[in-house]
Amino acid sequence: MASPDPGKLSLNGATVKKQWGLAQIIEGCARHGIRGIAPWRDQVHALGLKQTRALLDTHELTVTGLCRGGFFTAANWLDDNRRAIEEAHTLGAQCLVLVVGGLPSGSKDLMHARERIRECISILLPEARQAGVPLAIEPLHPMQAAERACINTLEQALDLCDALGEDGTKAQCALGVAVDVYHVWWDPKLQDQIARAGRQRILAYHICDWLVPTRDLLNDRGMMGDGVIDLPRIRGWVEAAGYAGFHEVEIFSELDWWKRDPDEVLRTCKERHASLT
Amino acid sequence: MASPDPGKLSLNGATVKKQWGLAQIIEGCARHGIRGIAPWRDQVHALGLKQTRALLDTHELTVTGLCRGGFFTAANWLDDNRRAIEEAHTLGAQCLVLVVGGLPSGSKDLMHARERIRECISILLPEARQAGVPLAIEPLHPMQAAERACINTLEQALDLCDALGEDGTKAQCALGVAVDVYHVWWDPKLQDQIARAGRQRILAYHICDWLVPTRDLLNDRGMMGDGVIDLPRIRGWVEAAGYAGFHEVEIFSELDWWKRDPDEVLRTCKERHASLT
Repeated sequence: MASPDPGKLSLNGATVKKQWGLAQIIEGCARHGIRGIAPWRDQVHALGLKQTRALLDTHELTVTGLCRGGFFTAANWLDDNRRAIEEAHTLGAQCLVLVVGGLPSGSKDLMHARERIRECISILLPEARQAGVPLAIEPLHPMQAAERACINTLEQALDLCDALGEDGTKAQCALGVAVDVYHVWWDPKLQDQIARAGRQRILAYHICDWLVPTRDLLNDRGMMGDGVIDLPRIRGWVEAAGYAGFHEVEIFSELDWWKRDPDEVLRTCKERHASLT
Repeated sequence: MASPDPGKLSLNGATVKKQWGLAQIIEGCARHGIRGIAPWRDQVHALGLKQTRALLDTHELTVTGLCRGGFFTAANWLDDNRRAIEEAHTLGAQCLVLVVGGLPSGSKDLMHARERIRECISILLPEARQAGVPLAIEPLHPMQAAERACINTLEQALDLCDALGEDGTKAQCALGVAVDVYHVWWDPKLQDQIARAGRQRILAYHICDWLVPTRDLLNDRGMMGDGVIDLPRIRGWVEAAGYAGFHEVEIFSELDWWKRDPDEVLRTCKERHASLT
């Protein structure tokens, strides 16, 4: 496996969100020669949408995704997702990442929650298409099914794309998937489903690592190389499917990386990306 | 959905293993009118195999499973699993539960680990068949893939049964699955795969609940009714597949149930089983 192109490294803002605001993250990426970035909307709002766009332009960063739309169980889901699409459009984001939401409070009806998600995305899809913002369904790890997303495998996400008419045969794909190794590395069908997704529908590729032991279900992700995910193998599958986009580092790490000097975090991301993914 | 038959309640020994030894667990089940039990091998060894058998006979308990065989990545896997089959035979267990093991230390090669598991089970299967002890592959939640079991969906477990010639068409099934709601509740293909498993291959049905939030990846299971698993619905699927066996309560709960009076735990299991599963 050849080493990845360092120019394909992207930084998801969550990786240093506890240390830096968005202006600092953008300037940090520029300083460290990281050419892609995926900002979070709360940080975009704090900096201001126009100011964010201007600063991204100044440093010529590619926005590999806007985090995030989705959470279709919330009362204001439609307005919020419309705003997210507008923001993604303004920022020139390659996709809007959808974390679809889990069970509504008090409900145990996963099938109903999944049906509702299908309906919500079908409503949103024409607006996203018109805005030129592809929607990326991010299947989340099954341990997040109740609280954050009840789309939990790549197969399920692609079945949903198929059901909504986005089977990957169109030249411009308005709906696809974000493949985050943290959520899907364990899946016995991963290789097949990455191939099925294909170049058209893999809208983002997120990397980090799975720590052993994992001490928290949400915020204990590892830096590439510190865990058990076979990152070169999965990158091989993604590239074999035709994906040639960025590799976005997204690390939620309450116990480790969020406590470190963010310049050290960015240096480490670069080193590990080059040597261990 | 009709309430379940109280006579089908079984207690997995892990549920009160921090409070009681096996003799106390057996006597506790008898005292509370719980007719099934699934002991753990360390507790069987501590009590003695013959003594365990004698005490089970005294109280006429059904052994709904012996926990556990598997861990095929261990050096002594073959000897240990042979002993487990003998013990299950001696105890008249309805199955030997296989927790198949995760990644070997230092490895990131899930595909190889899974291939090894297939080979180990194929070696064990004739011996289990001869001893009249069905092997129950327990797919574990994907969050346990690295450390405990890299069989992580019911579909994957059934594919393995198929590959080893146990497609569920024989009158006597030597290899099947243990369906534990905690591990599989999130699976979008659960209903289909339970139907596929069928009466012949569902060798055990384990219940508990998924807590929100879940504070630990291993030992924070909930009592039935305290979480978000739609237990009556899943029981409906299992019964529709023809399963008519026990409902085994297995709760690992460092923070709650392991700290309580075990008689209270057993009373609660009975009440919740009758009203909420």
